[in-house]
Amino acid sequence: MLSLVLPKGSLEKATLELFDAADLTVRRSSDRDYRASIDDPRIERVRVLRPQEIPTYLEQGLFDLGITGRDWITETDSDVVSLGELKYSKATSNPVRVIMAVPNDAPWQSVADLPEGVRISTEFPEMTRRFLDRHGVKAKVVPSYGATEAKVPDIVDAIVDLTETGSSLRKNGLRILDTLLTSYTELVANREAYEDDEKRAAMEDVALLLQGAIRARGNVLLKLNVAQSDLPGVLDIMPAMSSPTVTALAGGEASAVESVVPKRGVNTLIPALKAAGAHDILEIPISKIVD
Amino acid sequence: MLSLVLPKGSLEKATLELFDAADLTVRRSSDRDYRASIDDPRIERVRVLRPQEIPTYLEQGLFDLGITGRDWITETDSDVVSLGELKYSKATSNPVRVIMAVPNDAPWQSVADLPEGVRISTEFPEMTRRFLDRHGVKAKVVPSYGATEAKVPDIVDAIVDLTETGSSLRKNGLRILDTLLTSYTELVANREAYEDDEKRAAMEDVALLLQGAIRARGNVLLKLNVAQSDLPGVLDIMPAMSSPTVTALAGGEASAVESVVPKRGVNTLIPALKAAGAHDILEIPISKIVD
Amino acid sequence: MLSLVLPKGSLEKATLELFDAADLTVRRSSDRDYRASIDDPRIERVRVLRPQEIPTYLEQGLFDLGITGRDWITETDSDVVSLGELKYSKATSNPVRVIMAVPNDAPWQSVADLPEGVRISTEFPEMTRRFLDRHGVKAKVVPSYGATEAKVPDIVDAIVDLTETGSSLRKNGLRILDTLLTSYTELVANREAYEDDEKRAAMEDVALLLQGAIRARGNVLLKLNVAQSDLPGVLDIMPAMSSPTVTALAGGEASAVESVVPKRGVNTLIPALKAAGAHDILEIPISKIVD
Amino acid sequence: MLSLVLPKGSLEKATLELFDAADLTVRRSSDRDYRASIDDPRIERVRVLRPQEIPTYLEQGLFDLGITGRDWITETDSDVVSLGELKYSKATSNPVRVIMAVPNDAPWQSVADLPEGVRISTEFPEMTRRFLDRHGVKAKVVPSYGATEAKVPDIVDAIVDLTETGSSLRKNGLRILDTLLTSYTELVANREAYEDDEKRAAMEDVALLLQGAIRARGNVLLKLNVAQSDLPGVLDIMPAMSSPTVTALAGGEASAVESVVPKRGVNTLIPALKAAGAHDILEIPISKIVD
Amino acid sequence: MLSLVLPKGSLEKATLELFDAADLTVRRSSDRDYRASIDDPRIERVRVLRPQEIPTYLEQGLFDLGITGRDWITETDSDVVSLGELKYSKATSNPVRVIMAVPNDAPWQSVADLPEGVRISTEFPEMTRRFLDRHGVKAKVVPSYGATEAKVPDIVDAIVDLTETGSSLRKNGLRILDTLLTSYTELVANREAYEDDEKRAAMEDVALLLQGAIRARGNVLLKLNVAQSDLPGVLDIMPAMSSPTVTALAGGEASAVESVVPKRGVNTLIPALKAAGAHDILEIPISKIVD
Amino acid sequence: MLSLVLPKGSLEKATLELFDAADLTVRRSSDRDYRASIDDPRIERVRVLRPQEIPTYLEQGLFDLGITGRDWITETDSDVVSLGELKYSKATSNPVRVIMAVPNDAPWQSVADLPEGVRISTEFPEMTRRFLDRHGVKAKVVPSYGATEAKVPDIVDAIVDLTETGSSLRKNGLRILDTLLTSYTELVANREAYEDDEKRAAMEDVALLLQGAIRARGNVLLKLNVAQSDLPGVLDIMPAMSSPTVTALAGGEASAVESVVPKRGVNTLIPALKAAGAHDILEIPISKIVD
Repeated sequence: MLSLVLPKGSLEKATLELFDAADLTVRRSSDRDYRASIDDPRIERVRVLRPQEIPTYLEQGLFDLGITGRDWITETDSDVVSLGELKYSKATSNPVRVIMAVPNDAPWQSVADLPEGVRISTEFPEMTRRFLDRHGVKAKVVPSYGATEAKVPDIVDAIVDLTETGSSLRKNGLRILDTLLTSYTELVANREAYEDDEKRAAMEDVALLLQGAIRARGNVLLKLNVAQSDLPGVLDIMPAMSSPTVTALAGGEASAVESVVPKRGVNTLIPALKAAGAHDILEIPISKIVD
Repeated sequence: MLSLVLPKGSLEKATLELFDAADLTVRRSSDRDYRASIDDPRIERVRVLRPQEIPTYLEQGLFDLGITGRDWITETDSDVVSLGELKYSKATSNPVRVIMAVPNDAPWQSVADLPEGVRISTEFPEMTRRFLDRHGVKAKVVPSYGATEAKVPDIVDAIVDLTETGSSLRKNGLRILDTLLTSYTELVANREAYEDDEKRAAMEDVALLLQGAIRARGNVLLKLNVAQSDLPGVLDIMPAMSSPTVTALAGGEASAVESVVPKRGVNTLIPALKAAGAHDILEIPISKIVD
Repeated sequence: MLSLVLPKGSLEKATLELFDAADLTVRRSSDRDYRASIDDPRIERVRVLRPQEIPTYLEQGLFDLGITGRDWITETDSDVVSLGELKYSKATSNPVRVIMAVPNDAPWQSVADLPEGVRISTEFPEMTRRFLDRHGVKAKVVPSYGATEAKVPDIVDAIVDLTETGSSLRKNGLRILDTLLTSYTELVANREAYEDDEKRAAMEDVALLLQGAIRARGNVLLKLNVAQSDLPGVLDIMPAMSSPTVTALAGGEASAVESVVPKRGVNTLIPALKAAGAHDILEIPISKIVD
Repeated sequence: MLSLVLPKGSLEKATLELFDAADLTVRRSSDRDYRASIDDPRIERVRVLRPQEIPTYLEQGLFDLGITGRDWITETDSDVVSLGELKYSKATSNPVRVIMAVPNDAPWQSVADLPEGVRISTEFPEMTRRFLDRHGVKAKVVPSYGATEAKVPDIVDAIVDLTETGSSLRKNGLRILDTLLTSYTELVANREAYEDDEKRAAMEDVALLLQGAIRARGNVLLKLNVAQSDLPGVLDIMPAMSSPTVTALAGGEASAVESVVPKRGVNTLIPALKAAGAHDILEIPISKIVD
Repeated sequence: MLSLVLPKGSLEKATLELFDAADLTVRRSSDRDYRASIDDPRIERVRVLRPQEIPTYLEQGLFDLGITGRDWITETDSDVVSLGELKYSKATSNPVRVIMAVPNDAPWQSVADLPEGVRISTEFPEMTRRFLDRHGVKAKVVPSYGATEAKVPDIVDAIVDLTETGSSLRKNGLRILDTLLTSYTELVANREAYEDDEKRAAMEDVALLLQGAIRARGNVLLKLNVAQSDLPGVLDIMPAMSSPTVTALAGGEASAVESVVPKRGVNTLIPALKAAGAHDILEIPISKIVD
Repeated sequence: MLSLVLPKGSLEKATLELFDAADLTVRRSSDRDYRASIDDPRIERVRVLRPQEIPTYLEQGLFDLGITGRDWITETDSDVVSLGELKYSKATSNPVRVIMAVPNDAPWQSVADLPEGVRISTEFPEMTRRFLDRHGVKAKVVPSYGATEAKVPDIVDAIVDLTETGSSLRKNGLRILDTLLTSYTELVANREAYEDDEKRAAMEDVALLLQGAIRARGNVLLKLNVAQSDLPGVLDIMPAMSSPTVTALAGGEASAVESVVPKRGVNTLIPALKAAGAHDILEIPISKIVD
């Protein structure tokens, strides 16, 4: 039986929706309650807590399994086991990075150029200090509690902050000097719990259901009918990774084809299928895919 | 042609969503309008009114069919016909009960222990008076218009109130002395209308569509492929109540299996199916199930 | 590669939902940004602008393709090509009309009865002036910026305004004197771009995907099982426009039937199918239909 | 020391603002808490409860003093003492009345015309039954839980309901047949508490402060300077009920005049004062007036 | 008796607050109702309508008096009488201007430099056309319905738009080429009504009350005590425009000074007064000042 | 010229209202902008930043003057100068304290009882570590990012957290073991800036205006008339700290009395004054009081 800790805050809504889609619905008496439960024999305790706190809780064994970002695992330097990235939480396909940025017109081209006493604002003071140590830079690291990007050059000389598209950096007239970390949302386990066979099996079931729900979001089920003569042409343009099921229709002159295809690309696939002779094309939503 | 009355207030949103899912979409010119309509040849008039008022309206024949709770049917002592419970409106699987509660430290262990003149606050004064009469208790029943639980012991000595999880009772330091009623949301008809053959057939069609939509919510369609050798093992772990459709795939070495399975349990079923040799498992949402 | 302009305001949410359903998801950095993009090789530039401005932009070639109402095309007298109506934006099935309305007790029975100097308030002053010219009426046309219907008779004598159900006219004590235009939401192209073969092909792909998503909303996939003996009866009551796929089930005594049927009507179809011997009826949602 | 009960709901905000203005600020840990307190040596316990429940609580001595409407005092037929009307809660200067209304085209001209079995919907069933008994009418009185006016003639034949401006009646095509009660918001006491000298003194202090704050809202302090020669003319147009304080300014040729005047009327008074020779006119807000 | 038209939209809230402060409270049955009333013998009819429509209504005599911006008076080229600016509606003390703006890197330095066929987007097409005609520029003027500044250079080459601080222009990379108009919120009358003696007197009373409320917002009443010896020093630093009232206090060794002073500046005045020997300094809010 | 830093977040609204009341209105282009300005010759730069960051900024001389809580000054161990407490930000008159709390049923009676390895969650890890060191306790201090109180005993054994009324502690079944700090909101300066004569004078002016606005909130101006014979009795019950101004009214038989009195207490003072013979009692709001 696993104890599970989920991230409160910006990831919270997407995480709860993912668990719901994975048939692991999280129940709470109110949105503000940090106590929760999942009606699943493998999960005995669920809590919703700040992502910053989660790596420490997992390392110390307060929970067996959790979801958090690599950024906070690194900042808190926690010793935990990752069961892999969960791609459910981002608006774009760009990775989230922890970067160091300076004003566009600053004279520095690399971290090594930073002068002694340079002031750096960041929500990741530990990671920043280790990074600066490695580069031999002596800086004043000032912990920031939000709006870090707006503080240059008004209050500090440089920042270490998260960026996804870089648009906020551009708005504030900043350029990236270096990248400290590329961060993903990960499913993370306590090391000892992970080495327990029964717990590890339960963790892998949970991972299977979550990944199945994530994959389903990126795919649809396509059903179509096609004349025998057009069948090869239609199968030719089906995405390589799909394995279509073909059934002969009564009379034998036509076939029904059914295949899971990626959502991204279906906007060009459907017109192409129709041009190749497919008709009665149906696109049907999927809730979960497990290979 | 039926006239139909639906509950305004806390049940309203869930009721309208249920009718939409049942392809009986309720149309109103605004959310606040109590006049509505459904584009269905069996339903000629729709109104959305307070659930307290609905049993009386149905008894007096102002409407043929309606949705309300058993609590208000009992409170108003209305003579109506029930077409059964509709399980669509609850957050948990606990039943809603009308209970009598007293402070944790009150000396009473049963209703019979209540002293003469005991003050009881309730939104169900009639049901409460009948209940007390049956137990021979002479009490001051004070009608309450909300927040009943908070009034003990500050204003009254005991309450009769609704509870689902009991958490509100616990927060207010109350314990349950007795249960007056277990209440469900029911589809209820006027007795005379129900005895009219044509109207009864229409009522049963409406019930069929509503129950079909409710059942669909608790189930999903599972599709999977499996090698012939693994087929018996996979079918063995399918839920007993489902009747899978098995189709041999081209080549004959594998089969496609399709089955409706309960949503509750799919979180353990999918890992088990995969372990038993199933692959290409798809979970597909359903809008309606009619046996 | 197409440039595309979508309508901001009352149509905005429904338009973005339609493009999402058509696998042409529109991305914007914020809801208020008028710059957008679609991840599709046929579409290079997307903007979200007021529908009043769109016909002019399309006529002048600032965009290749856009969505707007016939009302604004007519008001601005723009020379554009229509790729057809898009039925996704309306609450009811009534058409939207631009009408002239007068108080219930006004003495006029037709436009020709309007006296010289009559004051008319409207958001469509150009269309109104052309209409009055055709009928030989000399009026004072006063541009209105909202709440046009409320201005009669307090401020003006008549109005030219949009109406869908007529309920707002009735509330304000107005009756319709004449109809200037029945307006639809249309997919509209710049004439020159439309005559470019490559662009026209891209436009038709976009139209195909949008219409496929619109059709899917009005239909569902019905799956059912039926004994051989009941099969003809079941097929008889299937809607004429559907072409059911019939598969014999193992054992040969029963068949599986699968068919796309219109959502409107499924509320009477399902009880009829069950009465005709169908069982295990499933209704499954569809995301897109392309014939 | 008094126990005090204030009305929850539509009067709540205005009541709390009045007590604040009267320097009797009501404190609660949250807006939803019905427990409250006032930092005043005369008031030991404060509760915020539904106005329907208040008359009964006062009659039974659960509280010494409360605020509620005459409508609920009459409906519950409670024996309480009124310390007078509190004019703080209304948008217009029309009285709130409990009236009986029927459709405009109903044949009845007085209550006595109502036929046996007439259906009447009302939130005041007891008051309605007593009223009908007095007029010898045998009716079906149906308790209503809101939107009473919309139920005629669709569900009932007549209503008994509250009205202030009559606009909601007009919108629903109703006319008033009779008036059962003119209702005011009143400061009301338990009879026994009122007869206790010390408690009555405390009640009168509370009434003094509340009435002082109410009066202040309707008045302003006007300060102005005027030449000796114009003084009589200026004093002549001062409202009769005010007693201006006149002070000679240094030099003796001018006077300063200071007076409390009603807010209603100050819009015509100020131009008149200026025309009469006043200058440097200042209007200053007042928080409380006690004669 | 005057008919009055007030601006709906961005000025609406501030206008209603001003009228309230001027003891000319505007009453409406709901925020969305455009019909209103003021309890004042000089005002018989009040409407709340879009500011764009108001100049035309006033010119045509549909209303006697109204509030609107000079921008719309000029755009509609209406012949009306102004009773002066009302300074109540702005966040900053910068004037609102209608300006022509072009991209920072555009080659044009004055309006005359604009080439034939230049595309200009604006909410003020008439004003823009007259302005371009005066400068001999042949342009394509495209009416805009919002977000005009964001359309350069993506859709048009230049804009004519409102600006107060210029910050929105800067954000969009635009610079001002020329100013067409400096616009104020004005109290405006129909010419014929203004020439009627009785109506003009009523208009001036209204103006007096509005200006009295506006002045009061920018001033406070300061009361202080000061020893005789320090009195000259204190009076010296009082703002020149104020005429303090000085009263000798009992005993004759100290004086009470009372004066209306501008709010802007009181933050430096109070410390200075205290330094000059003033004590017991009170600042008291004023509701209206009429000289 | 001072640079000033104000607290963002829970204190933000109250702080901006205080500065507005002090005639030091803070202007920002939007609520989310951390750049601000005040139209005052003594203040050249204003920023709104998280209170946690403020002590460090002041110590390092990034700002001259700021507002923050003693809790964060202590947590960050910053060397700054306090210009005194600002009493404007609290709902109750209880002080805010940083306390250590444990479950009601924990065996520990003092900090010294805590066993080695005890887990303590806190938003003040530095202050907590110093406190534990002083008491010789070896604990695991876990930084908390919110909802600290809910983590006992589920996740940790004890907490160090803020409390004002203790109600949140009671709800979570906790009792206070010790108090680390009583915290006030303070006006705080950089040490070097404070020692600059000109800057210190400016700081004291700002303090004077802020304290003047704070005092005004707790007081009102009372004006009343009283017969000569009753004057001594009336003056006797005036609060000791007020110095009433007494003016003889015309005729000499009555006096006008004017005095600033504390708001707290005016609810008993007014009835007492009236009983002592005062009449025409007016209570008038004050914006600022400077002795």
